[in-house]
Amino acid sequence: MSFDRLIERIEQTQNPTVAGLDPKLDYVPEYIRKKAFEKYGETLKGAAKALLEYNKGLIDALCDIVPAVKPQAAYYEMYGPAGMKALQKTQEYAREKGMFVITDGKRNDIGTTMEAYATAHLGKVKVGSKEYEPFIGDALTVNGYLGSDGIKPLLDICRENDKGIFVLAKTSNPSSGELQDRTIENMPVYEVMGKMCEGWGRELPGKYGYSGVGAVVGATYPEQIVYLREALPTTFFLIPGYGAQGAGAKDIAGAFDKNGLGGIVNSSRGIMCAYQKEKCDEHEYAQAARREAIRMRDDIMSVVGKIKLDK
Amino acid sequence: MSFDRLIERIEQTQNPTVAGLDPKLDYVPEYIRKKAFEKYGETLKGAAKALLEYNKGLIDALCDIVPAVKPQAAYYEMYGPAGMKALQKTQEYAREKGMFVITDGKRNDIGTTMEAYATAHLGKVKVGSKEYEPFIGDALTVNGYLGSDGIKPLLDICRENDKGIFVLAKTSNPSSGELQDRTIENMPVYEVMGKMCEGWGRELPGKYGYSGVGAVVGATYPEQIVYLREALPTTFFLIPGYGAQGAGAKDIAGAFDKNGLGGIVNSSRGIMCAYQKEKCDEHEYAQAARREAIRMRDDIMSVVGKIKLDK
Repeated sequence: MSFDRLIERIEQTQNPTVAGLDPKLDYVPEYIRKKAFEKYGETLKGAAKALLEYNKGLIDALCDIVPAVKPQAAYYEMYGPAGMKALQKTQEYAREKGMFVITDGKRNDIGTTMEAYATAHLGKVKVGSKEYEPFIGDALTVNGYLGSDGIKPLLDICRENDKGIFVLAKTSNPSSGELQDRTIENMPVYEVMGKMCEGWGRELPGKYGYSGVGAVVGATYPEQIVYLREALPTTFFLIPGYGAQGAGAKDIAGAFDKNGLGGIVNSSRGIMCAYQKEKCDEHEYAQAARREAIRMRDDIMSVVGKIKLDK
Repeated sequence: MSFDRLIERIEQTQNPTVAGLDPKLDYVPEYIRKKAFEKYGETLKGAAKALLEYNKGLIDALCDIVPAVKPQAAYYEMYGPAGMKALQKTQEYAREKGMFVITDGKRNDIGTTMEAYATAHLGKVKVGSKEYEPFIGDALTVNGYLGSDGIKPLLDICRENDKGIFVLAKTSNPSSGELQDRTIENMPVYEVMGKMCEGWGRELPGKYGYSGVGAVVGATYPEQIVYLREALPTTFFLIPGYGAQGAGAKDIAGAFDKNGLGGIVNSSRGIMCAYQKEKCDEHEYAQAARREAIRMRDDIMSVVGKIKLDK
């Protein structure tokens, strides 16, 4: 299943991190924006072309050392259909470069509607006698608030297309506890959700002990990471909140098993805007992103140790 | 705030219903599909053009008697960027025809990312010196699993642009209880979520007693509707599950206050596919939709009574 491919990429690169591609126009170096606006005007298309150009530079600089990218759908949707095209082209470019693509859409609905989202992001859609892949993610983040009716439509499509999902469990934001930390029969909501992931995951077993149903668990809650790693032994974690949101390598250590597997840590702004933090020439934005990705990898690997595929 | 405009449209039409526009290609009459494929091929663009044509016919037939449409984003996303363009054009067409547009996206995230979704669907995005409305919904459905960090970014954008949101509380599907019915300190999760809506809604008060933060409450759970109407006096309900999912007018009666306000009931397949159920000529799909919309209106109004704007 899908996370086997992700795990193999992580082992090859010895790097359990993912670069978030959340391109606000403000993050894009001026020379790229200017070039796009000269060609397409100050239009949604112009903005979308600038995002795509920026992303391609990042992907080129990262693809041999970082196993995966995580484009955040919101930042593309914000530029309308043209923005969604930039998402699609970004995904295609990352795939060409061998990267695993996690589409961060937090999609959720039920029945045939959830099937439509699954088709959009992980499957193939029929048009007359033809078939198309609308958006080519390898995995999609989803929200499980609606229960099994919202998740089961994804599982068949994942199985058929070798894809996976990450379900929100304990998110990285300060107010995540308003619902997620409340307890149901002495079990916090995030664990109730996590246990459902373990259940759904049984339909998508993987070679390395982790199913194709992962969970989003925030780096900003280290105790919950340790607790959930124990409680959810077959659930792979997508871990946001490193860097810009304040968490460090030590906070994340609990996510990994004795083989150094079990999670992938995201950084978006930290990598994308490294050139602003370094205050280097904006033409060097991609090299700065690579330097930050290497620093982050080394930081995380200092707590993970060697990553092995022993079963 | 936004739901004042919706409530006024409901009063004008004496019809508290919304037509869901969830256009699967299978629902589209063959003559429309054929025409689109002849012009654009069996492509994502061809599919998207067929959906738009179909929607326009429905909107033309419904706009004087039904106050609102609810396009479901998933069915457009499924056809890629071209599908998203059909969503945008559908929204624009419905707005031109005076309908209130509820984008059913169930979007959710935190901070600047949620702001990006809010901008995409309810706000305006800056590109250089220009401003654009990417997708022109009057309201957006959202998922509150992430807590206040996921909702607050919407409120300012709603206030500035006279828009509203509907937060998932008790969804209409059979498995919604897996999480939503579990109890936290003797209060079901759907009520915890509803109470949060009441709180968030205080920032978007309305003229008719209902705030700009509504809740999604399934027609398939009549007892919960009655209970929540009492518990959430300022929260307007978006009610899916009528018709195809099995609920009737009696099940929904509890959603309405003494002025006949308090909720809007959705039907998607029932209206869109009325021509299939009637087995009439497919060229008459729009008239069949109108007939079903009138039948539904009369059915719902039989339990609502007259709708008044008394304060």
